[in-house]
Amino acid sequence: MTAGVLYGLGVGPGDPELVTLKAYRILGEVPVIAWPAPQSGESLARSIVAPWLRGDREEIAIRMPLDARRFPAEEVYTRAVDAISRHLDAGRDVAAICEGDPFFYGSFMYLFARVADRYQVEVVPGVSSLMACPAAAGVPLAARDDALLVCPGTLADAAMTERLALADSVAIIKVGRHLARIRGVLDAAGLLGHAWYVAHATMGHQVVMPLADVTEDAGPYFSMILVHRRGEAWR
Amino acid sequence: MTAGVLYGLGVGPGDPELVTLKAYRILGEVPVIAWPAPQSGESLARSIVAPWLRGDREEIAIRMPLDARRFPAEEVYTRAVDAISRHLDAGRDVAAICEGDPFFYGSFMYLFARVADRYQVEVVPGVSSLMACPAAAGVPLAARDDALLVCPGTLADAAMTERLALADSVAIIKVGRHLARIRGVLDAAGLLGHAWYVAHATMGHQVVMPLADVTEDAGPYFSMILVHRRGEAWR
Repeated sequence: MTAGVLYGLGVGPGDPELVTLKAYRILGEVPVIAWPAPQSGESLARSIVAPWLRGDREEIAIRMPLDARRFPAEEVYTRAVDAISRHLDAGRDVAAICEGDPFFYGSFMYLFARVADRYQVEVVPGVSSLMACPAAAGVPLAARDDALLVCPGTLADAAMTERLALADSVAIIKVGRHLARIRGVLDAAGLLGHAWYVAHATMGHQVVMPLADVTEDAGPYFSMILVHRRGEAWR
Repeated sequence: MTAGVLYGLGVGPGDPELVTLKAYRILGEVPVIAWPAPQSGESLARSIVAPWLRGDREEIAIRMPLDARRFPAEEVYTRAVDAISRHLDAGRDVAAICEGDPFFYGSFMYLFARVADRYQVEVVPGVSSLMACPAAAGVPLAARDDALLVCPGTLADAAMTERLALADSVAIIKVGRHLARIRGVLDAAGLLGHAWYVAHATMGHQVVMPLADVTEDAGPYFSMILVHRRGEAWR
């Protein structure tokens, strides 16, 4: 028997219409889907594709404990790989769905690392938040010879400042509880006046505003700060 | 009469199946599409959506002279904006299609800059080469607290070296005739052994290989070099 294929399906930033035709087709063909979720509660990735799921299929939940300090949580992935492997061994294709893009800060890479040497894996790229947030804000990300930095909000002030200085355009991801601190770093670097804040891009509760007008000290995990040194990429 | 809407439609990296459901829907609804192309020859963006075009529509070619040294070429955009505005003024929606994503080093921003204050513009994000190349290579781009640098191959050696030193993961775009020079810069930085070369990702003539094995001194415009400081993002 030929083993099944594991698809890593990027399903985009939130709007179900930003799923690609390829992901849509594969979702209609596979007998098994796997999705990441918090320990309790809804899977964002699954909610994105929910309008496109037809008929019956098996579903594998990959639930990550909130207190998983050592990432990736070894046991959770071991169990998920076991469940997925049983289907692949039986010749059934499995689609592991991922918010945004599977290989852009996505957890799919931890499944990939554990199965790519044993099974056929196909990664289907998706629309990332890095593309969705500038589109939502009406702010072009980068042009011509711009050096573009994608910087996690978790970086310490000095490390962030040093990297900001060498970039023409910056997208700060994983903002969350670091929002106030990041605002301070950008202000000190003279960049606050050019910075945009975007949360939940392409979803019903999308927020877009100048960072200088944001009064909260923390944002959701799915928020991003965009700043271009020239103010506007096309100048 | 209500003016039409200008859509900036990201149509993805090359595989027509990597068009989003939203772009597919809009392509079926608009009476006018506009596409970028070289002075003579085919438009890559139009070829990506060609399988999805049904019936008749008006088409506006935005042809950029090869010797347009000052980018953007003012006259070409002025003519394109005139043609697009006539349709919008007459209440007809126009979709300007763009390879990859409209705001990620895309020429759509030059149209956007010229019309966004006068017309309703909606940017539909697309799958970028930044997502497609790692997927094609089976090489995760970035994870956890990685600083990710997107660096045009046009940057001078010293500027590139300085920026490489502060990044965990690097995607070098616009490789083209700079291929041999970039290989030298990465070698000097001790990163050549980790570097991948990807050309024409998701298209029929896709090439994926370790950069160290590439013998050519120049690549196509649509090529990218990926390198992760840890070798693999998940480590």
